[in-house]
Amino acid sequence: MQRLKMGMVGGGEGSFIGAVHRRAAALDGEIELVAGALSSTPEKALRSGRALGLPEGRNYASWEEMLEGELALPEEERIDFVSIVTPNHMHFPVARAFVRAGFDVICDKPLVHTSEQALELVRAVEKAGTIFCVTYNYTGYPMVRQARHMVRSGMLGELRKVIVEYSQGWLVRRLEDEDKQARWRTDPSLAGAAGAIGDIGSHAENLVATVTGLRISEICADLTTFVEGRRLDDDGNLLVRYEGGAKGVMISSQISTGEENNLSLRVYGTEGALQWRQEEPNHLLFAPFGKPVQTLRRGNPYLCEEARAASRLPAGHPEAFIEAFANLYLEAAAAMRARRGLSPERPPDFPTVYDGARGVHFIERVVESSRSEKKWLDARWEAPQPEGAGASGP
Amino acid sequence: MQRLKMGMVGGGEGSFIGAVHRRAAALDGEIELVAGALSSTPEKALRSGRALGLPEGRNYASWEEMLEGELALPEEERIDFVSIVTPNHMHFPVARAFVRAGFDVICDKPLVHTSEQALELVRAVEKAGTIFCVTYNYTGYPMVRQARHMVRSGMLGELRKVIVEYSQGWLVRRLEDEDKQARWRTDPSLAGAAGAIGDIGSHAENLVATVTGLRISEICADLTTFVEGRRLDDDGNLLVRYEGGAKGVMISSQISTGEENNLSLRVYGTEGALQWRQEEPNHLLFAPFGKPVQTLRRGNPYLCEEARAASRLPAGHPEAFIEAFANLYLEAAAAMRARRGLSPERPPDFPTVYDGARGVHFIERVVESSRSEKKWLDARWEAPQPEGAGASGP
Amino acid sequence: MQRLKMGMVGGGEGSFIGAVHRRAAALDGEIELVAGALSSTPEKALRSGRALGLPEGRNYASWEEMLEGELALPEEERIDFVSIVTPNHMHFPVARAFVRAGFDVICDKPLVHTSEQALELVRAVEKAGTIFCVTYNYTGYPMVRQARHMVRSGMLGELRKVIVEYSQGWLVRRLEDEDKQARWRTDPSLAGAAGAIGDIGSHAENLVATVTGLRISEICADLTTFVEGRRLDDDGNLLVRYEGGAKGVMISSQISTGEENNLSLRVYGTEGALQWRQEEPNHLLFAPFGKPVQTLRRGNPYLCEEARAASRLPAGHPEAFIEAFANLYLEAAAAMRARRGLSPERPPDFPTVYDGARGVHFIERVVESSRSEKKWLDARWEAPQPEGAGASGP
Amino acid sequence: MQRLKMGMVGGGEGSFIGAVHRRAAALDGEIELVAGALSSTPEKALRSGRALGLPEGRNYASWEEMLEGELALPEEERIDFVSIVTPNHMHFPVARAFVRAGFDVICDKPLVHTSEQALELVRAVEKAGTIFCVTYNYTGYPMVRQARHMVRSGMLGELRKVIVEYSQGWLVRRLEDEDKQARWRTDPSLAGAAGAIGDIGSHAENLVATVTGLRISEICADLTTFVEGRRLDDDGNLLVRYEGGAKGVMISSQISTGEENNLSLRVYGTEGALQWRQEEPNHLLFAPFGKPVQTLRRGNPYLCEEARAASRLPAGHPEAFIEAFANLYLEAAAAMRARRGLSPERPPDFPTVYDGARGVHFIERVVESSRSEKKWLDARWEAPQPEGAGASGP
Repeated sequence: MQRLKMGMVGGGEGSFIGAVHRRAAALDGEIELVAGALSSTPEKALRSGRALGLPEGRNYASWEEMLEGELALPEEERIDFVSIVTPNHMHFPVARAFVRAGFDVICDKPLVHTSEQALELVRAVEKAGTIFCVTYNYTGYPMVRQARHMVRSGMLGELRKVIVEYSQGWLVRRLEDEDKQARWRTDPSLAGAAGAIGDIGSHAENLVATVTGLRISEICADLTTFVEGRRLDDDGNLLVRYEGGAKGVMISSQISTGEENNLSLRVYGTEGALQWRQEEPNHLLFAPFGKPVQTLRRGNPYLCEEARAASRLPAGHPEAFIEAFANLYLEAAAAMRARRGLSPERPPDFPTVYDGARGVHFIERVVESSRSEKKWLDARWEAPQPEGAGASGP
Repeated sequence: MQRLKMGMVGGGEGSFIGAVHRRAAALDGEIELVAGALSSTPEKALRSGRALGLPEGRNYASWEEMLEGELALPEEERIDFVSIVTPNHMHFPVARAFVRAGFDVICDKPLVHTSEQALELVRAVEKAGTIFCVTYNYTGYPMVRQARHMVRSGMLGELRKVIVEYSQGWLVRRLEDEDKQARWRTDPSLAGAAGAIGDIGSHAENLVATVTGLRISEICADLTTFVEGRRLDDDGNLLVRYEGGAKGVMISSQISTGEENNLSLRVYGTEGALQWRQEEPNHLLFAPFGKPVQTLRRGNPYLCEEARAASRLPAGHPEAFIEAFANLYLEAAAAMRARRGLSPERPPDFPTVYDGARGVHFIERVVESSRSEKKWLDARWEAPQPEGAGASGP
Repeated sequence: MQRLKMGMVGGGEGSFIGAVHRRAAALDGEIELVAGALSSTPEKALRSGRALGLPEGRNYASWEEMLEGELALPEEERIDFVSIVTPNHMHFPVARAFVRAGFDVICDKPLVHTSEQALELVRAVEKAGTIFCVTYNYTGYPMVRQARHMVRSGMLGELRKVIVEYSQGWLVRRLEDEDKQARWRTDPSLAGAAGAIGDIGSHAENLVATVTGLRISEICADLTTFVEGRRLDDDGNLLVRYEGGAKGVMISSQISTGEENNLSLRVYGTEGALQWRQEEPNHLLFAPFGKPVQTLRRGNPYLCEEARAASRLPAGHPEAFIEAFANLYLEAAAAMRARRGLSPERPPDFPTVYDGARGVHFIERVVESSRSEKKWLDARWEAPQPEGAGASGP
Repeated sequence: MQRLKMGMVGGGEGSFIGAVHRRAAALDGEIELVAGALSSTPEKALRSGRALGLPEGRNYASWEEMLEGELALPEEERIDFVSIVTPNHMHFPVARAFVRAGFDVICDKPLVHTSEQALELVRAVEKAGTIFCVTYNYTGYPMVRQARHMVRSGMLGELRKVIVEYSQGWLVRRLEDEDKQARWRTDPSLAGAAGAIGDIGSHAENLVATVTGLRISEICADLTTFVEGRRLDDDGNLLVRYEGGAKGVMISSQISTGEENNLSLRVYGTEGALQWRQEEPNHLLFAPFGKPVQTLRRGNPYLCEEARAASRLPAGHPEAFIEAFANLYLEAAAAMRARRGLSPERPPDFPTVYDGARGVHFIERVVESSRSEKKWLDARWEAPQPEGAGASGP
């Protein structure tokens, strides 16, 4: 199998998510990092690229140079796609430029700062017909796919209640001055108008949507900034109403002392319930009505096809965060190959630019609801009507 | 030690909570059941009393006869207190009558149907100077007392967030026609204006208040009745704001498939966090900021005095629901003895009529908020100013 | 229902297990403590009896006085049974005397010190035709009964492997000089020839026998005394071979730092496996071959009849140690009533004198194996052939 | 950083562990797969290599060709090391040949079939002065390194008891005819004289040795073949005595229904105890004497340096099996670079040929003990005295 060629924007020294993307891309041997513009500071970009062993001529000082440089190469040598792992504010200009130039894109979340930007990006992707994957990485876990399968195939009956939570504790105290990650994630000019709800609440929204297919109709939000001097919310609680009558709670927090990365989902239906926790991702609890709770575990033959396909190791040999991340890369890579005619056409099983756009809309609504005296804020998302023929339709 | 003499109102055939109260009272050998009016249906009352071996002359056909009968006995033979375990609507008339007659009372929750009744009962208790215990039984768990100790002594720092949940699944389907418990708990004339939020949400409210001492300032509630034809809420989610700035979420549900009796509390402070789950009540998780999470376990010498005193068995020999319930009986019994001069005066360590009244107020506010379009409803509770000298002051 | 009248031998000041037996007896209101000889020291016996409120004339200074005193009462006033909760060395003389006098007996474990004593007691019970219950209390847990049901009804297929463990840590250090419980349990004249293996290993043996019905054929033991100056084993590991080909491991320890009362059982068969842990007794894990592990929880309708009958509270309202203990009292009481013609004859569902005798034999074999250079020691137990018509036949 | 060049022997179609090694090698971007002889069947070897995209000239039909072909290349183009992932019986000839030719080696476990082979290999490594890593991969987990640190630094006091278990259930039934993994692992000519005890028991032995540093003095083993027609043991239980007086139990099984990959370790000392389970590898339980149990979690600053260095992601972002495997590759790669003068000399933190040899000796002793009527078999291992100057000294 021919490896796909990846370029990376962002992810240099001090980056957390850049190294995750690189490991996810490398894990299965189907993707090769061949170019990069790893920082917005040129010297740092070059130093980071050298540390990673990027080839001299493709270790770029800026993303603009990279775009230009790659386009100057013969088509078969160019990168196949760009992976965008910068702070949020750069997602939009970089993604738009590469999409317009016809490159496939894998972009970290939240997609962009505003719904207007999101819509513009959707239009660009539709026009270019390229692949666009947003790394809502938690949906890559095999047991999330199993959960999705079980809900979608009716094993839970009619859904009534969804409790989702993403609680962290790393911002309990003010770290903004000493920690690069804390600094940009609490800076509105870099992170956008939302703090915790944008950074991690958007994962919670995406997880619910992916697993349940439920569409939010109304929300009632209470965002808080607990740490003095912080500029964005570090905690938030939401009441949620879904179309069709299901209800729920959504919690996001970065000041919940002792929590590490507690993304948890519970879905209650008339015939059964599911529970999944990201910190112990290899199992999924299933409570069929009136029967003992079952612990479904990754790697077993009784799982659905999608869960088995998303798994690399036998049961009991745990897989974790990087494998889930890598699953998005694998799926996006398969779609890229299909676009090039290298493998059969297939429906994308990864979050697309539409998921990213819906996530941006969700964040905007939450921020608005939190500021409002009105109890219920309409938060329905009207997916943009496709104009083009994007591989990643809604 | 002289045993205290208990009379019981309610708790006959088909009762769930009556047998719990009897076992709780019997467990430690300090209380003796000597009289009862076990049902509102006279024959059923008498039949139930015979099955329990109540002495003939004190197996009453109604609570009014019991009150009269006991008062006719010489004072030293009379019951010391009455335990009220009827459906909710009878709490008020029975409790008021026995209090006025000078008897101590142990009464199940929720206390009464309305704040007006609650206030009247508070006044009656204050005037009579009697002991009045409301069986918010979950506060009797040793590890809840440990949690209370740790929060109150500052080990969590300043509190920021409280997530409390009481989720059950036994009313997922319509049981009203076949199950006595389901019938009365969903009947407004017997249960009051609230379903799940009254039946179990009130435990959640009491647990938070007991452990944290936080006072609710505002709430935003969304109650739902999921099961067709049901007359009261069977699910509810609340955003909560506490005085002093803490925030939180409160969840109560009886339609959460697969949940049994999941009362869970998490308290996050600036210096640490606690987590306790009623279904595994012998331990308490403590996450001190920046250090490994500790699992505190009942029966160990490192626990606080109140937790140790509330424990009967060595560590690893699990205690559970009945022991916690019995702890309220023990504490109330100690207060009764103190009132009679049989043991030293001591502060009550059990939920009093004031807790009961606050609980009623809470339920009323939640129902009102749920019906309101206003986002935040003031839910502060002004404790009645004591007029008398009740042992169980606020 | 007429309450059964209980007398108690042992269980005075400083006793651990006496109070457990009293609570177990009191819990369900079917048994009344009416007499006692609570210590081998007369003054202490009397002082303890007064503290418990025993009637003056039946608060005996010694067990011999109690036996004599009760026999002098009219038959309908006498105790129905005696509960023996002394240190081990007194079990034999007290039990034998009361059995010979025709009283039913509930006796703590291990039954006696030697197989000869055990056989003599078996013969005495057979001759008297009385009820004799040995409080291997862990078999009283509902989920142990469920496990027994599942194994016995073939849900695990053919059994292959049994791992049982009873690990405690309370004797990690030398407590003999400061703690009454530690003192007698490590004194061969009071505890017998075995330390941990007798005190708790015997529970492990009984649990395996009860749940699986497997009979030990050979053992290979390694007992150790880790704490300097201790006179009996405080740790032991055994390889076990069962009749029919199953194999296993048995672990008992009182020096396993951090362990509280970790009695755990795993049974592996060709069609499924079970796991149960005493410290979280309300659930039982069941792994059917090739399917998800199920968590069976106490109080649910899907459990077997014996498990449901042994349960007092709805699912999620945890029961624990005292309820399990009380189940033995309830079962023994039912057998006592049946013997008196007060209720229908029924097979006993409690550990009998035969279980007690087998346990003594097991302990003897383990001690011998540990001292032996021979790898495998025959440890088959030939149940005494009944000579009489004991209610509690083998 | 210059990537190291890896060749692989074995690991073609149908291999389980080959893909694990490749992912482990790829994860961190420091190693590149450039050559392979992926099967003992030439066509299969070539087909597998093509599927992986091996360069044509270095996709060898046999390991002998690969050795010859690589030696024919200019030194700077040759592979730096060979990764041996064949069934066990090929480890010895392949490893010996590559070591003698001066290549560094990473070899799966168990090292070889016999102690004689092991000694010969040790001598060869000593003579060649090359790096030799045996992939006892479970020791690569960060929390195993933390456990090792805590034991070695005295936090547990004097060690008394070690319970280690490696239980699987995948061979509950006869899979030999349908599953390649089952076939060779139960074939003495390919797997060696031991089944489960060799395949997974050897991991248990290595884990204990790594974490505790204890040396086995005597063992008493009972190996069983439960499945009819199987040619090697599929279950085993051992009593173990360690030098210095600690004792323990070791369990290995592949017929424990419902178990997936349950490698678990408990270490009890006079001052504390540890517990770790491979299936939930991101935490480690620490029970300091007399204090609450602590849950240490990967990725936290309170961990030791080795545990932090072995970690790639923040706390709560779980790592798992492949990362642990990759840690051995990283450590071995660092040693290889040091040997080439490319980075500072450093002590190896990976299992060496000496660990491999000790493991082979252990398996031999267990098989012998199981066949013996003698209770205790001397199982001390005398590490070969180094004759040369191998980087990986004992």
